[in-house]
Amino acid sequence: MDDVAVITPRSNDFPRWYQDVIEKAELADNGPVRGSMVIRPYGYALWERMQADIDARIKAAGAVNAYFPLFIPESYLRREAEHVEGFSPELAVVTHGGGKELAEPVVVRPTSETVIGEYMAKWTQSYRDLPLLLNQWANVVRWELRPRLFLRTSEFLWQEGHTAHADEADAAAYARRIALEVYRDFMVSMLALPVFVGAKTRKERFAGATNTMTCEGMMGDGKALQMATSHELGQNFARAFDIDFLGADGGRHLAWTTSWGSSTRMIGGLIMAHGDDNGLRIPPALAPTQVIVLPVRDDEAVVAKAREITDALTAAGVRVSLDARPGLSFGRRVTDAELKGIPVRVEIGPRDLAAGNVTLARRDTGEKHPAPLTEVATRVPALLDDVQATIYAQALELREARTADVTSLADAVEAAGTGFARLPWRLVGEDGEARLAEESVTVRCLQTPDGELPSADTDDADLVCIVARAY
Amino acid sequence: MDDVAVITPRSNDFPRWYQDVIEKAELADNGPVRGSMVIRPYGYALWERMQADIDARIKAAGAVNAYFPLFIPESYLRREAEHVEGFSPELAVVTHGGGKELAEPVVVRPTSETVIGEYMAKWTQSYRDLPLLLNQWANVVRWELRPRLFLRTSEFLWQEGHTAHADEADAAAYARRIALEVYRDFMVSMLALPVFVGAKTRKERFAGATNTMTCEGMMGDGKALQMATSHELGQNFARAFDIDFLGADGGRHLAWTTSWGSSTRMIGGLIMAHGDDNGLRIPPALAPTQVIVLPVRDDEAVVAKAREITDALTAAGVRVSLDARPGLSFGRRVTDAELKGIPVRVEIGPRDLAAGNVTLARRDTGEKHPAPLTEVATRVPALLDDVQATIYAQALELREARTADVTSLADAVEAAGTGFARLPWRLVGEDGEARLAEESVTVRCLQTPDGELPSADTDDADLVCIVARAY
Ligand SMILES: [Zn+2]
Ligand SMILES: [Zn+2]
Repeated sequence: MDDVAVITPRSNDFPRWYQDVIEKAELADNGPVRGSMVIRPYGYALWERMQADIDARIKAAGAVNAYFPLFIPESYLRREAEHVEGFSPELAVVTHGGGKELAEPVVVRPTSETVIGEYMAKWTQSYRDLPLLLNQWANVVRWELRPRLFLRTSEFLWQEGHTAHADEADAAAYARRIALEVYRDFMVSMLALPVFVGAKTRKERFAGATNTMTCEGMMGDGKALQMATSHELGQNFARAFDIDFLGADGGRHLAWTTSWGSSTRMIGGLIMAHGDDNGLRIPPALAPTQVIVLPVRDDEAVVAKAREITDALTAAGVRVSLDARPGLSFGRRVTDAELKGIPVRVEIGPRDLAAGNVTLARRDTGEKHPAPLTEVATRVPALLDDVQATIYAQALELREARTADVTSLADAVEAAGTGFARLPWRLVGEDGEARLAEESVTVRCLQTPDGELPSADTDDADLVCIVARAY
Repeated sequence: MDDVAVITPRSNDFPRWYQDVIEKAELADNGPVRGSMVIRPYGYALWERMQADIDARIKAAGAVNAYFPLFIPESYLRREAEHVEGFSPELAVVTHGGGKELAEPVVVRPTSETVIGEYMAKWTQSYRDLPLLLNQWANVVRWELRPRLFLRTSEFLWQEGHTAHADEADAAAYARRIALEVYRDFMVSMLALPVFVGAKTRKERFAGATNTMTCEGMMGDGKALQMATSHELGQNFARAFDIDFLGADGGRHLAWTTSWGSSTRMIGGLIMAHGDDNGLRIPPALAPTQVIVLPVRDDEAVVAKAREITDALTAAGVRVSLDARPGLSFGRRVTDAELKGIPVRVEIGPRDLAAGNVTLARRDTGEKHPAPLTEVATRVPALLDDVQATIYAQALELREARTADVTSLADAVEAAGTGFARLPWRLVGEDGEARLAEESVTVRCLQTPDGELPSADTDDADLVCIVARAY
C-alpha cells in the first residue's frame, strides 16, 4: 500500500492495463509454479458470488452436485480417442506417489469428463435413473505455455455439468436450458454483460460434440471472450463409456449426454468488459461490497456518523463496509475504492455533517451528488439498481457501436480490428472460416437473423455469424 | 436399486457396517485410482451443508477466503524441515507437464501451508496488515496405503485456515476462538455431536505447533475420532517463511501464526457417531432433506394430498421432498428414507386421508404417531427440534456411559476396549503415553478438571487426560 496506485491507461496498452488492475485491485498474484495463480481474497470474493448465483441456477435446473477424484488413470483418457488428442500436450502426470514410482502413472484431471462418464455408466441401469443431472465444482489442470491470470492459467476453478438423458430431444432441451437460463441469464443479470448466445461452427465445436452453444462477450478492446459453453454430445460419449439403460420397452438403449462449463475465466471477462482507467467497475448485483462509507477525515463525530450510516445500510440489506483506516488519507481510500470497483461511495466530512448531508459518488459514471443524511438508506438501493442498469447499458452501447454488419470477408476482417462483424453464414462457410483464421479472426457463433440461439430446425442458410478476434 | 438393502448389523462388524451404510445410502464410491473417492450427490449434499455452516462461522470470526495453487515447488517443502519429514512418504509428485519432463518436479499439495506462508510474508509489511486472517476450501492429497472412505483417502476436501498476528496473545486467542466458536459449536449444534475439546500432548501435537487444540468425538463403537484441530504455531512458522513486519515501534518483528482445519472426514464421524442398523441418522440441522413425504400407495388423491403437504412444509421453511416414485413399494421407499437418515417421515395412505390424518415417523427413536392433516406444518418444525435434541442426548448418554474415570494405566487400557478413560495427566506423562501406545491407546486430549479447554496458565499438574483407541 506504499506506492500510490498508478495503472497504465487502458487505451495505451490494454494487456498491461489488465495486469495492473489485477495487481492494484489485489485480485490475484502469480503462483510459485509457472502458469499457476494465487486468487487473493478480493478476487476470491468475486468468485464466491459468481459461484453462489450459478450454483443456485444449476440446482433450479434440477442438477445435483457431486465430487469426482483429481487423479485419473491414463487409460481413461485413451478410451475417447478424440479427447486424448486434444488434451495430451496439456496434461500434468503424476509418476510418484507414497514414496514410490507408480505402476501406472495417473493424470491430473484436465476435466472430469472421463471419470464422470465411467460412474454415469455404473449408475444408469434403467430409464427410471434418467435424466441423471450432475454438476461438479473443482480445480482442473491444463498446462499453459503462455499463461495470463484468470484467462489462461495451468490450474483453474470451474464447474462442469454432465448429464445423461433417455432421448435426444430431452438432452438438447437441457443443454439449451443451461446455455440460456444458467449462463446467459447469469451474465446479463449478475455480470451486467450482454452476450451473444449462439452455436459454434463445426470447426469450433468441442471435440465429440454434436452441438456447442456459447456465450460470447465483448471486452473493452473490442475482442471477444468465450464466457461459458454448453454441449450436446449426441450418443458419442455414451458409446465410449457404455452409458446404456434398460428402456420402458424392455430393450437396451444408449443414453444421450450433455456437458457444460464456466470458470474463473469469467473474472477476466468482468475486468475486461467493465474496467476503466481507474480500475475495476463491479456491477452491484455481483459486488461483494456494494457500498463503501468513507469519513473524509479522522474526526470522532464524523466516524461515528459514518458508522451509523453503515449500520443503517446493512439493515436495509445492502452489502456495505466502512473504510476509516486511520493511516490512509481520504484520497488514498477513494482511489482504493475506485480500483476495487465498489459501485457506490458514501462520503462524509465535517461540513456535510453540519449540513445534515452526505455525498453519494457513483463508480460507473463518476457523478457525485449530495443527499440528506436521513435519506441515505432509502436512496442507496435505488442508486445501486441504477448503477447496475447503467453498466449494462454502457456495455451494450459499446457492443452495438463496435459490431458492424458487413457483407464480405474483407470487411469482416477490417471490422474485427476494433470489434465484431456480423454477416450471413452463407458468405463465410468452412472456406471462409479458414481464410479468416489466417487473419486471427474466428467465427464466435452462429445465430438466427434476429440474434437468437438457433435450434435444430433452423436452416443453415438463414444463419448469421459473429466474427471477431478473441482471447 | 435392485437388491433390497441389507446392511451388516453394526454390532456384528462395525467396519463392515460402515462400508455398507456408505454404499446403500449412496454417499460415496471408491474412485478408479486406489485410495481415491467419488463423493456421490447425497454425500456431497452433506458436505455442502457442513461447508456452508463452517464457512459462515469462519467469516464471523473475521477470516476471508482465498485460493492457492494445487502444485507446490518441491523446494518449498524443504524450507520447513519438520514438515517435509512428516509428509514425504505421502506426497504425489508431478514429473511431466505440457508433454515434457519438468526441470523441477512439483508436488501436489498435502496442505497449502508452505505456499500460504510464502504469500503471507509478501503481504505482511506493517503492523497495519495484521492480523492477516486467511482460509481456503480445497482438495489436498496425501497418499494412503490403507484407505477408508471419508476417514483416510488419498485425496480429501477440507478447509485450512492460516493466520498471522502481531503478538502471541492475539494468536492464541484466535486459535482458541476457532476451536471453540467454529469447530466445537458446529459439532454440537449442527452435527449433534458432543465433543471433548482439549489440548494435544507434546507428542500428539502437529509438527511445529506450540499448542494443538482438538475436538474429539466418540463413535458408536466407543473409539475416538479427531474431528478438527486448531494450532498455535508460535513464531516457528513465521521464522521459516520470513513473515515479519514493521511494528508501531519502528522495529521489525516476527509474526505469530496459527493454522486450523476440518475435512470430509467429518462425514465419516457423522456416520459412525449416529448411524444404526437401519443406516444413517442425520441431525435435522444438518440434513439436506429434513422431511420426506411418502404416499403409502400410488393413488391419485393420496399423491395430490402428499404434494399439498410438501408444499405447506416448504412454505414453513422445512427442507422437504416428496417420494412418490411409482416403481417402488411403500416399504422400499421407507427403507430408503431410513438408510439415508431422513429425520422425519410424513406417511399418508387412503385410510389416513379419510380420517384427516397422517403418520409422523421419527428416524431417531423409530416412534410413529398420527397427526391431524391440518397440523402437519405447525407440528413438524417442533418435531425436528426434538429429533435434533434427542440425537445429541443419545450421543452424550453413550459417551457418558462409556467414559470411565480411572486411576491407573491398566484400568485406562481396559476402559479403552469399549470407550474412553479419563485420568489425571500426572498419572500418565510421557512415559505412560509410550506404554499406552503399546496397547494402541492414545491420549486424545488434555482438559481442565471441569472438562474445559486448558489455557496457557493452566497448571499441568491439574490437567486430566482422555485416552482411547482412535481412528
Ligand atoms: Zn450400463
Ligand atoms: Zn516480510
